Amino acid sequence: MYITTLGSHSSLQILHGAKKEGFNTMVISDEKRENFYKRFQFIDKINKYSTLDDAVKLINSEIDSIFIPHGSLIEYLKMERVKKIEIPIFGNRNLFEWESNQKKKMSLLKDSNIHIPDSFENPEEVDRLVIVKLPGAKGGKGYFIAKNKSEVKEGLNKLLESKEISSIEDVIIQEYVVGIPMYFHFFYSPILKRVELTGMDIRYETNVDGLRRLPSNLTSDIEPTFVVAGNIPVIARESLLPKAFDYAENFVNTVKNKVPPGMIGPFCLESVVTEDLDIVVFEFSGRIVAGTNLYVEGSPYSWLYWDEPMSVGRRIAREIKLASIQNKLGEITS
Amino acid sequence: MYITTLGSHSSLQILHGAKKEGFNTMVISDEKRENFYKRFQFIDKINKYSTLDDAVKLINSEIDSIFIPHGSLIEYLKMERVKKIEIPIFGNRNLFEWESNQKKKMSLLKDSNIHIPDSFENPEEVDRLVIVKLPGAKGGKGYFIAKNKSEVKEGLNKLLESKEISSIEDVIIQEYVVGIPMYFHFFYSPILKRVELTGMDIRYETNVDGLRRLPSNLTSDIEPTFVVAGNIPVIARESLLPKAFDYAENFVNTVKNKVPPGMIGPFCLESVVTEDLDIVVFEFSGRIVAGTNLYVEGSPYSWLYWDEPMSVGRRIAREIKLASIQNKLGEITS
Amino acid sequence: MYITTLGSHSSLQILHGAKKEGFNTMVISDEKRENFYKRFQFIDKINKYSTLDDAVKLINSEIDSIFIPHGSLIEYLKMERVKKIEIPIFGNRNLFEWESNQKKKMSLLKDSNIHIPDSFENPEEVDRLVIVKLPGAKGGKGYFIAKNKSEVKEGLNKLLESKEISSIEDVIIQEYVVGIPMYFHFFYSPILKRVELTGMDIRYETNVDGLRRLPSNLTSDIEPTFVVAGNIPVIARESLLPKAFDYAENFVNTVKNKVPPGMIGPFCLESVVTEDLDIVVFEFSGRIVAGTNLYVEGSPYSWLYWDEPMSVGRRIAREIKLASIQNKLGEITS
Repeated sequence: MYITTLGSHSSLQILHGAKKEGFNTMVISDEKRENFYKRFQFIDKINKYSTLDDAVKLINSEIDSIFIPHGSLIEYLKMERVKKIEIPIFGNRNLFEWESNQKKKMSLLKDSNIHIPDSFENPEEVDRLVIVKLPGAKGGKGYFIAKNKSEVKEGLNKLLESKEISSIEDVIIQEYVVGIPMYFHFFYSPILKRVELTGMDIRYETNVDGLRRLPSNLTSDIEPTFVVAGNIPVIARESLLPKAFDYAENFVNTVKNKVPPGMIGPFCLESVVTEDLDIVVFEFSGRIVAGTNLYVEGSPYSWLYWDEPMSVGRRIAREIKLASIQNKLGEITS
Repeated sequence: MYITTLGSHSSLQILHGAKKEGFNTMVISDEKRENFYKRFQFIDKINKYSTLDDAVKLINSEIDSIFIPHGSLIEYLKMERVKKIEIPIFGNRNLFEWESNQKKKMSLLKDSNIHIPDSFENPEEVDRLVIVKLPGAKGGKGYFIAKNKSEVKEGLNKLLESKEISSIEDVIIQEYVVGIPMYFHFFYSPILKRVELTGMDIRYETNVDGLRRLPSNLTSDIEPTFVVAGNIPVIARESLLPKAFDYAENFVNTVKNKVPPGMIGPFCLESVVTEDLDIVVFEFSGRIVAGTNLYVEGSPYSWLYWDEPMSVGRRIAREIKLASIQNKLGEITS
Repeated sequence: MYITTLGSHSSLQILHGAKKEGFNTMVISDEKRENFYKRFQFIDKINKYSTLDDAVKLINSEIDSIFIPHGSLIEYLKMERVKKIEIPIFGNRNLFEWESNQKKKMSLLKDSNIHIPDSFENPEEVDRLVIVKLPGAKGGKGYFIAKNKSEVKEGLNKLLESKEISSIEDVIIQEYVVGIPMYFHFFYSPILKRVELTGMDIRYETNVDGLRRLPSNLTSDIEPTFVVAGNIPVIARESLLPKAFDYAENFVNTVKNKVPPGMIGPFCLESVVTEDLDIVVFEFSGRIVAGTNLYVEGSPYSWLYWDEPMSVGRRIAREIKLASIQNKLGEITS
């Protein structure tokens, strides 16, 4: 059986882990990246595409396979093509729609009794520091921070003029929670019926994480941008973990109720930890996040569960293997 | 034999390491955290308490055990309860008193010929950038930085008004050394008679490490806070290590002379490295620090000593095992 | 056979890796650091020197050995002494000269179609944010950033007055590319005929990485400095890697043509990633960089190639072993 994924985001980790668990591995790759993926011996087969429609055909061409979605899947293929994937997808494909609708997305967090930032429907309502976000997994491109309603309006006008958005309804205006970013990676196992903490990361964003190294008099006329270009490892103090797990379990329960068949596999609670040690979750990812690429050989947390190196990519393959042995593949795919 | 610790701080690492070395493991946990600690299979026994006095009774209830103190022990139980622990404690319990008295604490560093920041007895003496600290392991809560004596007085008045301190004698006014923080984790082994460098970390503090990502015009009216919420891995350039080891060995010798039976096990020199590559130590911890949680599977330094994954938690258990085999448990407990 | 290196920079990693591959290990150490290197059991022999001329004699004294150069070699011994090394050097010793001449150095990057920052011959030409660098591996000492030509001149005058430079021709005035630093570690294997990505790091610089934690009103009169005192681990988003590999392969080809016998072993492309996700390389290192010390037990990337812990130090020793078995030592030394 093949484990297949789209060549980007965390495909190296996913296929490396799949090979460790004994699967055949296949990457569906843009033809321009074929040479890149050829460098890695754990990839058995490279199916290259020149158009995105071809990519979908190639995904469907290998029937004896399971497809692993990741954070760049919908960004690359767009929702309508992803819907055409006919082979089993690891995880819950119904969650894709919920994630693409910002209101439905935040409602899953809210219904889980997770502390989320306030949001503002209208620039006129803004009464504090806010971050204005463009929807979709664009890696932070176009995000801006504003101190008051007039700065919000100014920023939105720029986005409208540059046609990066077509209407102000395209953006999310969220309270900017002051604190430190911390991204909690979890894995829900329907087979072992448990939530595992698989790791944590901080995003490394350009240019903002570079700008902050310059004296402020040099940077006053440079606009900060928030494009994620990498990830840095981090751990949380142990006393934060009980709350993080409560959030994760509540979230798994909410998704089970609202989006059948529920959460399967990796997800991420993208959080800010405030000075009162409150965890405020401003977003979630319903599948593997790129920050897990830090932990190809296991994380400080994965070693608490497993006596062998367990990346999230490998954890996915392990879940598939366990399900397969127990004749439960239907419980982890959709 | 049980290895026991209080459920917080680095208890997962400590008990995970103890299990690796073949010990039975027990956590003394607040009843609210029982569900959290249940998640981990390497914990054999969870003894839950509802009051802090109960916690001490539970610690003493298992006679065939060694108790491992960590950075949250005194913060949680307070000194008078810690004194009531009757079972053997790994390490030197006489050091607790020295650590709780800021003057005695800094004198151990000074007597070791370690470069420490200047400190000021009185706000009137302040003639440079300073950091004002509240005593005890409160994770940076309430710390503030001040540029001159009037800013110091202003900050102290706020703390007095909010009753976070009862007198200005409760605080430490320390020269703020400009440079980069670097926390050196060491382990002194009375059995192998050597100092090992077990790792290094940087603290990840809320909100200060988040604020710095914002343009200064947005943050001008937000007070920076220094509450430690996590840790980031780091290494030092090799040419810094000889001095770091000199400091560590001097310190071990000083503690041996001043605080019998001397240093046993993990300690940390909390330092700033200046642009002249001087190491200035502004604090020490006489037991395991939370930054070691980064290295559950070993650190870039532990691998230079050990051909197996060696966290500090496991290193403690290894020391106990070595001592036990050689009938020297009395040399590593107090 | 001995693997030998100078005691500093990455010598622990190099010798630790050499021992793993079964070699005898020797460090040529300043006599003041003898006690430091004695702490590590994987070092078989410590040859201590009191003068730098002695260091060269000691290097040459063990004929059955291969010498591993690192980033501090020329900084410590100076070029004329390094030329007197008579035993085989792992890597291409002809590259030393190219690296010490800033113009020749940058030309190798430019000829590889690698995006490099613009540079300015004369302070008068400066029309944007620039960084002014002193040549040689001085770890960032004396670097400064300037916003315009008058700030450049002011900074240069200070350096001339303090005699840190003797002429303005000693410095490099380079466009300061706004973005995030990211250092890509590669290894070119003449035996396996492939480029491997061995890791990535961010430099941890004093005092600049400490200053940024302070509110700007407190730091306005403190000059930022850029002395590298440590390294922090990082990974890049997967979609950046194809371009990074293209750069690395182009660079290997250029060095092969311009500096026979070409690139051998580790090198580093020191880069800034811009908000457009462009990779701009502002410098390269033709040998092992200190950032690889993070990965004594392997990096998130090394595990994609090797099923065993593979530091760059060990990778070097592995290359020597492979070459030795195939009677090709001449292809990897010079």
